[in-house]
Amino acid sequence: MNNATRVLLDESRIPHAWYNILADLPSPPPPPLHPGTRRPVAPEDLAPLFPMELIGQEATADRFVAIPESVRDVYRLWRPTPLIRARRLERALGTPARVYYKYEGGSPAGSHKVNTAVPQAYYNAQQGIRRLTTETGAGQWGSALAFACAQYDLECEIWMVRASYDQKPHRRSLMRVYGATVHPSPSAITGAGSEILAAEPGSPGSLGIAISEAVEAAGGSDDTRYALGSVLNHVLLHQTVIGEEALEQLAAFGETPDLIVGCTGGGSNFAGLMFPFLREKLAGRIDPEIRAVEPAACPSFTRGTYAYDYGDAAGFTPMMKMYTLGHGFVPDPIHAGGLRYHGMSPLLSHMYDLGMFGAVARTQRECFEAGLQFARTEGIVPAPEPAHALAETVAEALRCKETGERKVILTALCGHGHFDLTAYDRYLAGDMKDVAPAQKRIDHALEGLPATEPAG
Amino acid sequence: MNNATRVLLDESRIPHAWYNILADLPSPPPPPLHPGTRRPVAPEDLAPLFPMELIGQEATADRFVAIPESVRDVYRLWRPTPLIRARRLERALGTPARVYYKYEGGSPAGSHKVNTAVPQAYYNAQQGIRRLTTETGAGQWGSALAFACAQYDLECEIWMVRASYDQKPHRRSLMRVYGATVHPSPSAITGAGSEILAAEPGSPGSLGIAISEAVEAAGGSDDTRYALGSVLNHVLLHQTVIGEEALEQLAAFGETPDLIVGCTGGGSNFAGLMFPFLREKLAGRIDPEIRAVEPAACPSFTRGTYAYDYGDAAGFTPMMKMYTLGHGFVPDPIHAGGLRYHGMSPLLSHMYDLGMFGAVARTQRECFEAGLQFARTEGIVPAPEPAHALAETVAEALRCKETGERKVILTALCGHGHFDLTAYDRYLAGDMKDVAPAQKRIDHALEGLPATEPAG
Repeated sequence: MNNATRVLLDESRIPHAWYNILADLPSPPPPPLHPGTRRPVAPEDLAPLFPMELIGQEATADRFVAIPESVRDVYRLWRPTPLIRARRLERALGTPARVYYKYEGGSPAGSHKVNTAVPQAYYNAQQGIRRLTTETGAGQWGSALAFACAQYDLECEIWMVRASYDQKPHRRSLMRVYGATVHPSPSAITGAGSEILAAEPGSPGSLGIAISEAVEAAGGSDDTRYALGSVLNHVLLHQTVIGEEALEQLAAFGETPDLIVGCTGGGSNFAGLMFPFLREKLAGRIDPEIRAVEPAACPSFTRGTYAYDYGDAAGFTPMMKMYTLGHGFVPDPIHAGGLRYHGMSPLLSHMYDLGMFGAVARTQRECFEAGLQFARTEGIVPAPEPAHALAETVAEALRCKETGERKVILTALCGHGHFDLTAYDRYLAGDMKDVAPAQKRIDHALEGLPATEPAG
Repeated sequence: MNNATRVLLDESRIPHAWYNILADLPSPPPPPLHPGTRRPVAPEDLAPLFPMELIGQEATADRFVAIPESVRDVYRLWRPTPLIRARRLERALGTPARVYYKYEGGSPAGSHKVNTAVPQAYYNAQQGIRRLTTETGAGQWGSALAFACAQYDLECEIWMVRASYDQKPHRRSLMRVYGATVHPSPSAITGAGSEILAAEPGSPGSLGIAISEAVEAAGGSDDTRYALGSVLNHVLLHQTVIGEEALEQLAAFGETPDLIVGCTGGGSNFAGLMFPFLREKLAGRIDPEIRAVEPAACPSFTRGTYAYDYGDAAGFTPMMKMYTLGHGFVPDPIHAGGLRYHGMSPLLSHMYDLGMFGAVARTQRECFEAGLQFARTEGIVPAPEPAHALAETVAEALRCKETGERKVILTALCGHGHFDLTAYDRYLAGDMKDVAPAQKRIDHALEGLPATEPAG
């Protein structure tokens, strides 16, 4: 291994293709079902929501999908991102483990989300679309899409989960700086939002509700489409630039990973990092353990059920087989807004069901504790979402300290926490609570899972 | 010229020495004077404030000062920083000019300030100091020093200008995340602060006042020293890593600069970028025009006087010959808090007096306009301070569009604006005012300049 702290790559090393793990799985994931007919959705069913190119990517069997030159050209603003060895954190922990993090926070809008926002905006613009709608939780996806839309002269209209809208006014401002329109969700603008407001006027909202609103707002207009920031296959596909670069960079460090750790909300950051490594693992070239980390407040892998469910609260989206807490489950408003999603990527769910990786849950205080230690040693203040991966990384590094194992741990620091300092303030003031749903809340939400029998 | 967007350098290219321009000037700057005796200050006069190593750097005649390995090791977390060609901005402007920016916002705390914070903390720690005090305007210096102190196990106590303390709560939180203690200034903790509060209970504060408080708090304790984030020779010296890297990177682009533009508050960012280029200019190898940009609200170069004045409001510091608006001048609370300083680096003042570079002033709305255009094209939201340099860069690029000149413009994007989104909000809402002091306010403050006759 070499003694560098950061391995940077020249922009010629931006990958030329995204990696599609569907081509290498032992079996395909169960198909999404149409919410009306409960039969597998056809591409034309999705055409009112997405441009045809993305619908094609959703189901393609090609192992690699070429990245358009226009997209690579925007990627050049921040990619390749650095792979950094956390030497100061290792020293503070006194661990024999070697910890590497792939840092995506230097991107426009400050997270990995722009890796997929840019191609999504590009393919929509190519098809002549003029306006995109979307939802956002912590605001990271919304600001990424706002930036991407500015690159391709698209209008951008965003429903932001009310809890985050109130907690993170600066994320909202950032979307406006990039030229987008932002509404709190639930909003009175849509039917779905109005219904929820009628039932619970003070609703903190959820990603599921915000998705319903954005999907509804996209419908019925030829020049408008919807964009999703996680969960779907094409989103995970676009994020594989993270792992492809990290493979090359970790090799430049002279290392192979023993453990890969990533946080999961919808799953795109975790998938983006680990899919290329999993490809190498399936080919027998490396053998890392792979582990997802989710919040104890929204534990879809560790306490959910693998079943068909809607992607949104109102049941507008196709039904997807996934680990879910039930589409009616509204997670407590923890600070990792980007992880407050009732479901999980169907592709990752299928792979988890096949035993291809593990999962653990972490409470928010242990995440902020790890985030604080990371900031003071490595300098970067992590967003609460990747702080989940850091909490697990720190715990593993401390286990190595006990066992003496010199494990190589690779994690994704998918965004900075510059818009999360109110949460750090609260943690420092001893004012933060750990929350985990009672089993009966999960059971109740799971009772609302839809039937999967074909309707006709 | 090559067709890259970013030129990155390997960490082996972090400079091994800082460049001291004092060695290459036709004459030395006038010496600082003791505020009591009004005779040139001796090193021992400064010993209660600074560690001996920094006092030595303040006056050294060595052309180069070696960077300690411990400091280079911390620099590795973010240095070398990228040099980026603003291709998307150029395209949006339709200019034949080529615009390059050296981006320092990827550092811990998000600005160039940490380049000097780290060596300052290091030399203090080497001398056995346990605690540093300082002031901060926009909060960039304070958060940089807080991070640096965390690297060397020093306590850090910060007086933050009240206007910024209220406008930028997240900068304050960031300092606390890094482990520092933060007070609003003026505060009742110090004599200087108490006096000002007695005269004007709602005082928005100023850098000059905050310096008085931090200097007072450092005095009288053997294990405490004071740290300054700009103005002094050793601070400018440490910032030359910016220009040294940029020289190598611009050469890698195959370019030589026609114009170098930087914003000036105390002057360290501007000096850090341009000193190494000026060395090459003095040696006859390149011939760029060099231009400082200051805020119209605090125009020390363009409307101040070159005279001996105090560095702080209360007159605790040595008297320095500099462009000044008078130490009693309290600038209007514009959003570029880091540029709200009544004086200017004595070294830069001397060089400006010698005609070695030019200066212009810009109003805040034109700076936010440029910042917004930059964010939407290049992805990075600039802090209000470097937005001044961007406003001048954009204006020059548009002049080139008229004249057809293919100028190479180099600027310093010394920090991101993630903690300045309230200001962007205000700009977007049409709610921001341009302010420039009436001449009689400046005249009145200049009447308070101290006499320079030796006291005894």
